[in-house]
Amino acid sequence: MHILLVHAHPEARSLNGALTRFIVGRLERQQHSVAVSDLYAMRWNAVLDRADRLDIDPDQRFDPSLDSRDAYARGTQSPDIAREQDKLRRADAVILQFPLWWFSMPAILKGWVERVYAYGFAYGVGEHSDARWGDRYGEGSMAGKRAMLVVTAGGWESHYGPRGINGPIDDILFPIQHGILHYPGFDVLPPHVVYRTGKTDVARFERICAVLGERLDTLFTTPPLPFRRQNGGDYTIPELGLRDDICPGRAGFCIHLAQR
Amino acid sequence: MHILLVHAHPEARSLNGALTRFIVGRLERQQHSVAVSDLYAMRWNAVLDRADRLDIDPDQRFDPSLDSRDAYARGTQSPDIAREQDKLRRADAVILQFPLWWFSMPAILKGWVERVYAYGFAYGVGEHSDARWGDRYGEGSMAGKRAMLVVTAGGWESHYGPRGINGPIDDILFPIQHGILHYPGFDVLPPHVVYRTGKTDVARFERICAVLGERLDTLFTTPPLPFRRQNGGDYTIPELGLRDDICPGRAGFCIHLAQR
Repeated sequence: MHILLVHAHPEARSLNGALTRFIVGRLERQQHSVAVSDLYAMRWNAVLDRADRLDIDPDQRFDPSLDSRDAYARGTQSPDIAREQDKLRRADAVILQFPLWWFSMPAILKGWVERVYAYGFAYGVGEHSDARWGDRYGEGSMAGKRAMLVVTAGGWESHYGPRGINGPIDDILFPIQHGILHYPGFDVLPPHVVYRTGKTDVARFERICAVLGERLDTLFTTPPLPFRRQNGGDYTIPELGLRDDICPGRAGFCIHLAQR
Repeated sequence: MHILLVHAHPEARSLNGALTRFIVGRLERQQHSVAVSDLYAMRWNAVLDRADRLDIDPDQRFDPSLDSRDAYARGTQSPDIAREQDKLRRADAVILQFPLWWFSMPAILKGWVERVYAYGFAYGVGEHSDARWGDRYGEGSMAGKRAMLVVTAGGWESHYGPRGINGPIDDILFPIQHGILHYPGFDVLPPHVVYRTGKTDVARFERICAVLGERLDTLFTTPPLPFRRQNGGDYTIPELGLRDDICPGRAGFCIHLAQR
């Protein structure tokens, strides 16, 4: 299989850098091929703007969404965007690997999502009408591919527990796992999160790699998170609320995962 | 009073651009002074890296957290970072105004947070021990200041409702409102969210401004969101879980707001 690893840390001699090298080595040992988008090393342009569309009229009002659509359709996207889209097309699985900064991904990776996820590629796909709100949340261009987050956090695991002060890690990652990965159709695997990273000596790094190695060895067999499909019958269209008879009376991110 | 408006949209002739101009005019009419950080117009550097510390040794391993601490303490931060910190110090209230892209803030604004929120300025403030986990979540450098989000979203309000497919807007914004604003001590006001922005004609824009104008007129009197204070007795230290007798048996973002 072919895996795309997107890595977002400014220092190769960091825990995150070591994790990326471990991931590549482990996957290759399993006879997979791996492409790495090392965003800092690539000096990735994190800022979506009118330069992303090569054929834009200089006087024209820039619309992030409509200009993305036209540039994608006409083949006039900035070449760095098109290259990353090709990497996504080729991949059977995608791993996003990053430190949790201010409870989300680093800006450089967020800018990768914003620019690479073009209208017509990652959103605005399929029929949009009052009866169907596009191919998304379980359908779309990434359907059939798997995705997984590998995240490091400085705080303690208890701070991210069900009642921890930062909020539960599953909820912190929901806008990424559901809103960025499930949205264009990825099957999203449970994340691999490493806590308290300030205290990582060699022995601990080896323990982290042992657990992460297991996850990589089962990348194509681990059951994905059971996020509901938009067009699978659970949601009313076009309001896109969960049907009243499913998880009745409940609200929040967790109702968008089917109960097992 | 003095307000800092941080604006993150690439096109001045957009709804977001119009909202920013409306906000400035309305606040000035109320005799407030306003500073605007228009991140796209400023060509803000969104990418945190070793260049943020002017006195870093070229061969030294870069540590995003520790080098931020040292640069802040020694006055060797990149000047663009120090300027934004000064703007925050001067402000009585801060408004972050942006389009919701992929269920979070645009990368350019996330990069503003990552670079401006230095160690010693926005985190790593106060005593850190087994008995006290710093001045944060209700205390810190921004204590006494107010903050508010003004956000636009393309989707329908129902898609962001309590049972909407995107997740409830309050939960989507929690990592920002709680994790980025409450964390360094801001009093966080309820957000102003505009939905379905593709359909904004002049009449609708006037209705949006009428409601937003009310919010701006009451910027210093609206009760803030009742996020709990880390050091107010509701959390165990150092585990930082919510005490068992508060919201017993419940979990999720919502338990971190006191019930009224």
